[in-house]
Amino acid sequence: MIRYQVTLSYDGSNYKGWQVQPGKKSLQAAIETAFSTLYKTKIEIVASGRTDTGVHALGQVFHYDVFQEIPEKRIVKGINSLLPKDIRILKIEKIDSEFHARYLAKSKIYEYRVNLGRYDLFQRNYCLQYNQRVDVSLIKAVLKVFIGTHDFTSFNTTTLKENYNQVRTIEKFSVKEIDNLLIFTIQGSGFLRYMIRMIIGTTLEVGRGKLSISEVKTMLEKQEKGVCRYKAGAEGLYLKKVIY
Amino acid sequence: MIRYQVTLSYDGSNYKGWQVQPGKKSLQAAIETAFSTLYKTKIEIVASGRTDTGVHALGQVFHYDVFQEIPEKRIVKGINSLLPKDIRILKIEKIDSEFHARYLAKSKIYEYRVNLGRYDLFQRNYCLQYNQRVDVSLIKAVLKVFIGTHDFTSFNTTTLKENYNQVRTIEKFSVKEIDNLLIFTIQGSGFLRYMIRMIIGTTLEVGRGKLSISEVKTMLEKQEKGVCRYKAGAEGLYLKKVIY
Repeated sequence: MIRYQVTLSYDGSNYKGWQVQPGKKSLQAAIETAFSTLYKTKIEIVASGRTDTGVHALGQVFHYDVFQEIPEKRIVKGINSLLPKDIRILKIEKIDSEFHARYLAKSKIYEYRVNLGRYDLFQRNYCLQYNQRVDVSLIKAVLKVFIGTHDFTSFNTTTLKENYNQVRTIEKFSVKEIDNLLIFTIQGSGFLRYMIRMIIGTTLEVGRGKLSISEVKTMLEKQEKGVCRYKAGAEGLYLKKVIY
Repeated sequence: MIRYQVTLSYDGSNYKGWQVQPGKKSLQAAIETAFSTLYKTKIEIVASGRTDTGVHALGQVFHYDVFQEIPEKRIVKGINSLLPKDIRILKIEKIDSEFHARYLAKSKIYEYRVNLGRYDLFQRNYCLQYNQRVDVSLIKAVLKVFIGTHDFTSFNTTTLKENYNQVRTIEKFSVKEIDNLLIFTIQGSGFLRYMIRMIIGTTLEVGRGKLSISEVKTMLEKQEKGVCRYKAGAEGLYLKKVIY
């Protein structure tokens, strides 16, 4: 048996997320179909984690096992010709059979893109269209509230029944402004459901002066579902890199 | 009766072109539906010209007539909230009833975008993905063959039966290179079916050294259907501006 590690990019706009769901178009199903066609046998893939409907990837990672050996370059070429145009394999390599795309993921880097300018229809699926005046220095200041290890109960929708431990670590969180584009980069060891989008939604509210930094601190300290009513759209979110 | 001139932008990826065709999704139908809903009466629009399946617009123009007066700002807001997210009205203004979006169009400016870098799935509908080494100086040189007034019979698929006169004038034609992106700008008084895409396809062949400038001259001089076998994809083409 050979285990392969695969790095890929996709445009999530036309998918109901990563995970296979009956009757819905998923990235996992599209990719498994291509691999199963190439190998002429059913291939199952294990990703670093799911992405939600409309979320993109610049560097998602998965692994799969197979008995048949095909040179890596030929796999990349073959799979990319079988995949839909909105999914692309970037890299494939043989890896130790101890490797596991999900369990061994140490940390993940996400990017979140916001267009502060006029509605750009060509970017409607690729940036949050947020035509608001924001104070970027306020956004930079509020990012610090989230950095570090916190109980993020207030900033996600995973129920405590699903996952009692909602303590997570945000290792890095920054934002840069390029013309009218805001690009957030957030790195952490694990994210709960909608956690990044709720945090980004909150920082944007601070940016446009609707919420103060101390209110955000209070929200975080409350550790309570429902205190954060903000969630930025999926279209701005990119899984950029998985670190092992 | 009031005549309005409207300037709009659209992403053509999800439409079978501008013109209404039974059973097919057209831009014209989507726009007429929005206007008819706003005015609660059937509105017909007349564009500067059609765009083909997959072709985009940064500044298409149309006119329509209506008896009811609504302030321009309210029309823009109302229509944009009724339109799909891939069509956007940019400007609307009352205009003399002698104005005609098609007949009075003096000249049109199109843009054609080519990604010379690695396949970019996020740009697959917005740039030609042309991962080839090209010599931009050769492209710049061959553009000059097309500038001016010529019989373009060889470089379009409009039959002579449909339109006997295939003499057209290309007023301006240039290209700029920004990193891996080539942006062509072409301005002319009128373009025949697939004329721009066949010209661009030909210049790219010259760029990658598969065709010489003198061969292109010969093709043009032949004035014969079938001599040009190149047609760049619709995804790179944008109607940028209509000049009246």
